[in-house]
Amino acid sequence: MDLKDYLKQRCQLVDKALDRLLPDAGELPAALHGSMRYSIFAGGKRVRPVLLLAACEAVGGDPERALPAACAMEMIHTYSLIHDDLPAMDDDDFRRGNATNHKVYGEATAILAGDALLTEAFILLSRAEVGGDPAARLRVIHEIAHAAGSRGMVGGQMVDMESEGKGEIDLALLSYIHTHKTGALIRASVRAGAILGGAGERELAALTRYGDTTGLAFQIADDILDVEGTTEQLGKDAGSDQARGKATYPALVGLEASKQRAQELVQMALDALAPFDERADPLRAIASYIVKRNS
Amino acid sequence: MDLKDYLKQRCQLVDKALDRLLPDAGELPAALHGSMRYSIFAGGKRVRPVLLLAACEAVGGDPERALPAACAMEMIHTYSLIHDDLPAMDDDDFRRGNATNHKVYGEATAILAGDALLTEAFILLSRAEVGGDPAARLRVIHEIAHAAGSRGMVGGQMVDMESEGKGEIDLALLSYIHTHKTGALIRASVRAGAILGGAGERELAALTRYGDTTGLAFQIADDILDVEGTTEQLGKDAGSDQARGKATYPALVGLEASKQRAQELVQMALDALAPFDERADPLRAIASYIVKRNS
Repeated sequence: MDLKDYLKQRCQLVDKALDRLLPDAGELPAALHGSMRYSIFAGGKRVRPVLLLAACEAVGGDPERALPAACAMEMIHTYSLIHDDLPAMDDDDFRRGNATNHKVYGEATAILAGDALLTEAFILLSRAEVGGDPAARLRVIHEIAHAAGSRGMVGGQMVDMESEGKGEIDLALLSYIHTHKTGALIRASVRAGAILGGAGERELAALTRYGDTTGLAFQIADDILDVEGTTEQLGKDAGSDQARGKATYPALVGLEASKQRAQELVQMALDALAPFDERADPLRAIASYIVKRNS
Repeated sequence: MDLKDYLKQRCQLVDKALDRLLPDAGELPAALHGSMRYSIFAGGKRVRPVLLLAACEAVGGDPERALPAACAMEMIHTYSLIHDDLPAMDDDDFRRGNATNHKVYGEATAILAGDALLTEAFILLSRAEVGGDPAARLRVIHEIAHAAGSRGMVGGQMVDMESEGKGEIDLALLSYIHTHKTGALIRASVRAGAILGGAGERELAALTRYGDTTGLAFQIADDILDVEGTTEQLGKDAGSDQARGKATYPALVGLEASKQRAQELVQMALDALAPFDERADPLRAIASYIVKRNS
């Protein structure tokens, strides 16, 4: 399969659904809806929704059915970026080469747009029109909420913030940050897609291993990119994590060991997919792509 | 029935459930969980959870079963207060006589605690342990999320913020703010309790009228209290809405007309309850109490 074509097609599917499912920019309150749309359509790579759809496909599910859940993941991810960028948090002026939400709409609107995007995710996840087994959908909502909450993403962001500039942090703490701040949502994306696709518990366990290893590899790759990438590639200042004293994998174990670890994790992800047939090829290709984009 | 005893007993039930359902203050990240608990236990009157439980009872449901949903409503309400109080929003130092969340924990933690409380609400609403009809629970999640989102509470807060200090605003705009910023969540509390209690569509329609009229009466009563109440009663500066140029009912139609309108709305709420038996007495008592607390 050609991953580029697949990703392009999938991103278009997600973008169209996001456009259809989000309130119009003209709908009152217009500044709020405009602000929500601004960040949703600011060039995200749609990693979480694509993983969700691919996991759904891998177990023989219909990805169309999983589209609202895929969009919900992107909304949660986007809300977290808007709030992370706020002056009281990371105080970032640019993201992916664009002005951050609060630089365009002001802090108050950015806070509310983040709140509304998080809430909109649960509106989508519970829509009557989606159909499917209500018990499975409740489980998906629970898993996603748990992954996004104080024991997941928000908890990871809190610890990341606390540890910033505090000098030496150890691998255990960095691992906590990685698995919570980004890992939890990636794991939940894969699991949600699998559950909505009708996965059995064994398939779900295998795909969870895939999600965990892919998520960590993705985070390490991101850290490596921050060291090696150009400002143009990143859409933010290269080396900005380092400059800010943010804990990263390369800073703790070195660049070469980080690359090796990312490779190992991708191999573990591929191993987890061994029992699956060719319908899991998109998941395989995505895992391999994560480390390739650094070379 | 004695409303004071009823409210006291119900508040204790909700407080105990909140304490049981929220992560421990000692659980990592401790500052985040401490901050979430600080605002949850800062003296809220538990209006929304009590309404939810009372609506569940009114249709013959078991209020114990509805407790997680009742707690979820209080979490959503509390998150909205934390974010509203932020320097970029209303910039309030005190609420109910206590220092606001960001004054105690800092802005970044306050933002994250709000995010986590909103998310925790959906964790609770989707818990497997709760049981009950999954389709009804999905519907409840959808209604609550919709009421809390950009077309509900967050939308109301956005318009309220935009209109502040802009001089004359008309009754239509004030009504939008009231029905969205506070009304939507009160309506959703009543409807959620009714749905979880097994209400038929006719009962649900009647209770929705009760929720809408009670919600608006409650908001007008709050506006009146801001004019007439003492600083001690309010836990914030009396007349602070006026000083800030915030749109209020008394400012637009006068104090006497506001009181009359609140009375009318309470009567409409009681009329909506006419088809219900004595199990709706708590709902009746709550509606009557709303206007009495001003006299």
